Amino acid sequence: MARKIVRKPSAIVAQRLRQCRAEMTRKGLPAYLLTNRHDHYYLAGFSGEDSALLVTKNAVWVISDGRFEESIRNECPWARVALRKGQLPEEIGNVCRRLGLRRLAVQTDHLSLDTHAAIRKAARPTRLVKAPPIANEMRLCKDAAELKVMAEAIRVAEEAFRAACRTIRIGQTERELAARLEYEMARRGSTGPAFPSIIAEGLNAALPHAVPGGRKVRRGSAILFDWGATVGFYRSDLTRVVFIGTIAPKMRAIYEITLEAQRKAIEAIRPGRRMCDVDAVARDHIAQAGFGKQFGHGLGHGLGLDVHEPPALSWRSDKKLEPGMVVTVEPGIYVPGTGGVRIEDDVLVTAAGCRVLTHLPKDIGSAVLPAR
Amino acid sequence: MARKIVRKPSAIVAQRLRQCRAEMTRKGLPAYLLTNRHDHYYLAGFSGEDSALLVTKNAVWVISDGRFEESIRNECPWARVALRKGQLPEEIGNVCRRLGLRRLAVQTDHLSLDTHAAIRKAARPTRLVKAPPIANEMRLCKDAAELKVMAEAIRVAEEAFRAACRTIRIGQTERELAARLEYEMARRGSTGPAFPSIIAEGLNAALPHAVPGGRKVRRGSAILFDWGATVGFYRSDLTRVVFIGTIAPKMRAIYEITLEAQRKAIEAIRPGRRMCDVDAVARDHIAQAGFGKQFGHGLGHGLGLDVHEPPALSWRSDKKLEPGMVVTVEPGIYVPGTGGVRIEDDVLVTAAGCRVLTHLPKDIGSAVLPAR
Repeated sequence: MARKIVRKPSAIVAQRLRQCRAEMTRKGLPAYLLTNRHDHYYLAGFSGEDSALLVTKNAVWVISDGRFEESIRNECPWARVALRKGQLPEEIGNVCRRLGLRRLAVQTDHLSLDTHAAIRKAARPTRLVKAPPIANEMRLCKDAAELKVMAEAIRVAEEAFRAACRTIRIGQTERELAARLEYEMARRGSTGPAFPSIIAEGLNAALPHAVPGGRKVRRGSAILFDWGATVGFYRSDLTRVVFIGTIAPKMRAIYEITLEAQRKAIEAIRPGRRMCDVDAVARDHIAQAGFGKQFGHGLGHGLGLDVHEPPALSWRSDKKLEPGMVVTVEPGIYVPGTGGVRIEDDVLVTAAGCRVLTHLPKDIGSAVLPAR
Repeated sequence: MARKIVRKPSAIVAQRLRQCRAEMTRKGLPAYLLTNRHDHYYLAGFSGEDSALLVTKNAVWVISDGRFEESIRNECPWARVALRKGQLPEEIGNVCRRLGLRRLAVQTDHLSLDTHAAIRKAARPTRLVKAPPIANEMRLCKDAAELKVMAEAIRVAEEAFRAACRTIRIGQTERELAARLEYEMARRGSTGPAFPSIIAEGLNAALPHAVPGGRKVRRGSAILFDWGATVGFYRSDLTRVVFIGTIAPKMRAIYEITLEAQRKAIEAIRPGRRMCDVDAVARDHIAQAGFGKQFGHGLGHGLGLDVHEPPALSWRSDKKLEPGMVVTVEPGIYVPGTGGVRIEDDVLVTAAGCRVLTHLPKDIGSAVLPAR
């Protein structure tokens, strides 16, 4: 039976391409080469790897190889296709010459010097120019389609966490906890952890980026979970700390300070606020409590197709929040020799302020699990 | 209690640094900036992200941020440390000026144009030059320490596959199979899938890079598994096809052709052989059987800290195999409307020829699982 080939992109892809082309026209760019695969998915629905996307006024080219021929047919049958036999830069060059391009805008934030040089050579006489961050800026603010998928990535991560928490037993290792949590996410439709899960017991939680190892759940353990799901290529990212049976007084104090810092920061999120000012709200609270030096990282980051994407919600950025941005808010206090606490939620900037997309409770009462 | 600070790198790290510095001297490079995190682990045992490593004749600098302070203390307490307050390029610049460097070799195969420009600006008057691929070439051939860890990554992937196969039931989805397989790997110590697992039932296996979805295990299903574990930061990568209950005659034929192509290619692996010649052995066999157009990708790739790293075992490369290289050998035949078969093992090039590091059986008899 002949397959029906759809010759038009979906409404959402068509809309994004229109916006992209409008920006290209505004910037005087006849052709835009995208080498970041998340942009391929965003602008064309194409999920292949090791490929390039070339957007012109009249066409979208997928420059790829035989491994992704069938994916192209399924995901963007409306696109023009160039399958390389040699290296990718050569095939990009072939398409440029075929189209008679005089200038090609490339993603200098992503392209390596060597690949850039290879494309420049292969595409002659096409001249390469630095592309303004068109796709990056489009991706800063999430549209309704993206928010729907991200809500699903959050739901999967949260339900999996609830299920995994029910199975925690004294004597299990951090690695076993990670395995179980990721299994529960995968069963619910996550195509993979959003990033390598951090499950850190006790002293290990003093490392903001701990790797799950052989430390075991004990009565009185404080265990930090930093995890997320990937659904429809979009990611979620949460952090919770659970206490097994009891809470040491020092950990309780750190937890309450972190939670209050997060509450204040979320309250401060609204369009027009500078990133550094929101960061400062949490940072000042933690510093006033005497733990300023124990909060060494930024308050949060953008979230979407990448687990870390712009904007950086950090003291280093004076950019402003805009409606549609989704950021993590994740203050933490890390005390070597004691342990660490971080609490992280995903927050959507709205016209009026913000909406917390994550739902898991975080009052210290719900953080205590039975020791069993 | 004061922690004992080790002021010397481990024997293996010291040996690698000696080799790196010998190459630097040979190439007249006083300072080498590594921005690829796998190289950080390889040359310094440092596992942090968003960091840079600067190797000079007398010192190794880790340029990082507060999140990784504790990791640095644990992993490379012998290194000098610069923690950034601003962006990474600025801190790299600070170190360059502090050391009075005239020239800094950078990884142009990895550094983006924008980051390169930012470092160039921040490091003035230090001049940036293109580094020869010193770390890349060191990593081409695996040493005994690496092979030991890779053997473990393979063992974990293989035991997990056996365990996962025992749990396959009619009606399960590809996604459920992936969840189970990854859970079994994680339980055995994998810190994460080596790459997003490909579990493809029936027609879906005609996509070399299929994403596990809602297709279900049926009596007569052919299911392709392409998976690997990560252990101690090193990866394994295997592919097997299993048949539920029975094998369709066409799939049996494709399977036997693929298996024989792989057998011949592995037999052809020895030091001094060109990559393209080994690729041709498998490709010719498949072409002679009439499926030349259905094998669209290279025969294999290097494997180590990255799941895809040099050398490319491909028709595009006339480089030669060397003892210590570990490559995947993974011919495949993909027939849209029918399905696909790929068989993949990890192979070490030895002085005398090669050794297959993976052990799972692949005769068609062992590929048939009971339909239950």
